[in-house]
Amino acid sequence: MSKVEEIQRYLQQNHIDAAFVTTPDNVFYVSGFKSNPHERLLGVMIFKDAEPFLICPQMEIPDAKAAGWSYEVIGHQDTENSMEVLAQAIVARQITPATFAIEKAQLIVERLEALQQSFPQASFVRLDEKINAMRVIKDESELEKLRKAAELADYAIEIGCKEIAEGKTEMEILTAIESAIQDKGCKMSFETMVLSGPKTASPHGKPGARKIEKGDMVLFDLGVIYDGYCSDITRTVAFGEPSEAQKEIYQTVLAANTNAVAAVKPGVRAMDLDKIARDTITEAGYGEYFTHRLGHGLGISVHEFPSVTGANEMTMEEGMVFTIEPGIYKSDVTGVRIEDDVVVTKDGVEVLTKFPKDLIIL
Amino acid sequence: MSKVEEIQRYLQQNHIDAAFVTTPDNVFYVSGFKSNPHERLLGVMIFKDAEPFLICPQMEIPDAKAAGWSYEVIGHQDTENSMEVLAQAIVARQITPATFAIEKAQLIVERLEALQQSFPQASFVRLDEKINAMRVIKDESELEKLRKAAELADYAIEIGCKEIAEGKTEMEILTAIESAIQDKGCKMSFETMVLSGPKTASPHGKPGARKIEKGDMVLFDLGVIYDGYCSDITRTVAFGEPSEAQKEIYQTVLAANTNAVAAVKPGVRAMDLDKIARDTITEAGYGEYFTHRLGHGLGISVHEFPSVTGANEMTMEEGMVFTIEPGIYKSDVTGVRIEDDVVVTKDGVEVLTKFPKDLIIL
Repeated sequence: MSKVEEIQRYLQQNHIDAAFVTTPDNVFYVSGFKSNPHERLLGVMIFKDAEPFLICPQMEIPDAKAAGWSYEVIGHQDTENSMEVLAQAIVARQITPATFAIEKAQLIVERLEALQQSFPQASFVRLDEKINAMRVIKDESELEKLRKAAELADYAIEIGCKEIAEGKTEMEILTAIESAIQDKGCKMSFETMVLSGPKTASPHGKPGARKIEKGDMVLFDLGVIYDGYCSDITRTVAFGEPSEAQKEIYQTVLAANTNAVAAVKPGVRAMDLDKIARDTITEAGYGEYFTHRLGHGLGISVHEFPSVTGANEMTMEEGMVFTIEPGIYKSDVTGVRIEDDVVVTKDGVEVLTKFPKDLIIL
Repeated sequence: MSKVEEIQRYLQQNHIDAAFVTTPDNVFYVSGFKSNPHERLLGVMIFKDAEPFLICPQMEIPDAKAAGWSYEVIGHQDTENSMEVLAQAIVARQITPATFAIEKAQLIVERLEALQQSFPQASFVRLDEKINAMRVIKDESELEKLRKAAELADYAIEIGCKEIAEGKTEMEILTAIESAIQDKGCKMSFETMVLSGPKTASPHGKPGARKIEKGDMVLFDLGVIYDGYCSDITRTVAFGEPSEAQKEIYQTVLAANTNAVAAVKPGVRAMDLDKIARDTITEAGYGEYFTHRLGHGLGISVHEFPSVTGANEMTMEEGMVFTIEPGIYKSDVTGVRIEDDVVVTKDGVEVLTKFPKDLIIL
């Protein structure tokens, strides 16, 4: 059953007349067409009892068809009101939806208001949870892409480690990593992070012109897109012998990572995994320095469901893919984060990222 | 007057109790704090009669303060409902807004619904046009950054031209360009495009492993971010002697570009500029192959107001910055696009991108 058919069946079961999918990653998921339309309208309209259509900028119609979308494609010009083009396409099918399912966590208010204006009797329910539930379970073809994306992330870390040298800047190392990935015909899945020395203690720091010195820890956080699917890895390495305080932080984060990874299996809750890692860090006395959630889902988007937080009671199931990335950020010592991408298997876990995690001293 | 004060004055004049700014680029514009919070809440709440506050993930509070935000910063944890944290922060100020101004073209439906739930009596009006009107006129400090960003874009095109050689792939040339920009400590403002041969005829094509051959046209579309401000340039060059048909297309696009650029001055309408370029191309017989708008505004965002389309009656004013990028995409001959970034000056135009536009044959 295709993704479109699965949504259609959901509409039928829930007596919803139409589903409007507009998040670019969700459009890719249901249609195979990957496009970033910026402020222009891109969407898939799926009906309970009629053929779906895709709406996109006029000039992207050939690309949408080439991507394998076999139903109708409706184009809109920059000179048109695209939401009016959409409404006309619905009306032309002699359909007046009484209920739309929309992505309330993604759709912008003015597009909702445009639909309300065209269909004043319609009510709007959430589609988010249905699409999330579909996307959160990866099938084998998706897992194969995620494996390749993780392999490329391992390779990128390897390049990064090789590039570390006294006097090199963070940006020089970053450039070498990104060039190596571009040489493989791939792109990074988010802005690559190479942070050194005191900058490792800033979880969202920005790489810059700081030069690597002996005694620095160096933190890499990066990911690669393979055939539309993202990886996301973090490794922290030492350039020169680290201090005892740095080693203790490293070993604590590593234990938090491996304890949480080892606990992954069907039935465990997201919050349980977060707690396992957090307890390990808290018991070592660093609880206040682990300032973010344990991880996040991974797939077409680099951040997707499930969110691995202490508040998420969601139970993990076979086929879910997410990151496990505990960290300690102690500005007077170092920051360390160790992040893996994992898949829940039938009876345990498959770790996609394979770059070594024992402390590497360069 | 600071941007916050300008919005506060707008609220007072229009009897609106609060403005909620959540678009990351708008948050940067009003607060100086640049951050991409992904799905997490980032926003600035500005009140008619009280001090504003910024709300962001807990771990970004130091960065927000370091960026120069001098009012209160409210943090939220991943384990909290950030929209409830926001509502509590408003209630704690003993404020019950009857009217919110929100960015209807940016705010997602579920955040609107959360505000509606916390403030059931409130009505919601658009803030978009006010912020757009502020952002669309650049002051001298913004223009200085845009000039630097354009200079870096010129440099990137220069690198790209130098890299063109028989047998090199589009991705290799792209990598060389991006490395050169990273070496300057800067990032690209969007995904760099290097398209060769028949691929030039796809306005949104993707660079890949295609190898450059003698007789190819090569199209570069790229931009650089300098201190938060974006450039965006396109140049098309020939590798080996082009055919007469290719030359004719090139000269037509060049004439469309220069005619439109020459017409830029205060008082001209966006649609007039689009028409000048489109007429030039249509008169040469290529009208059907110019399939997109003439250009778009440029600043903190790589696509912002004004949209330079045949339908936009907006009058250009001093300080507006936008692209002029006519193109012809004829798949049996070639695609050509020539794009400049321009500023409306007191009595004419300043062209920021300075890389030569006469046909370059390498």
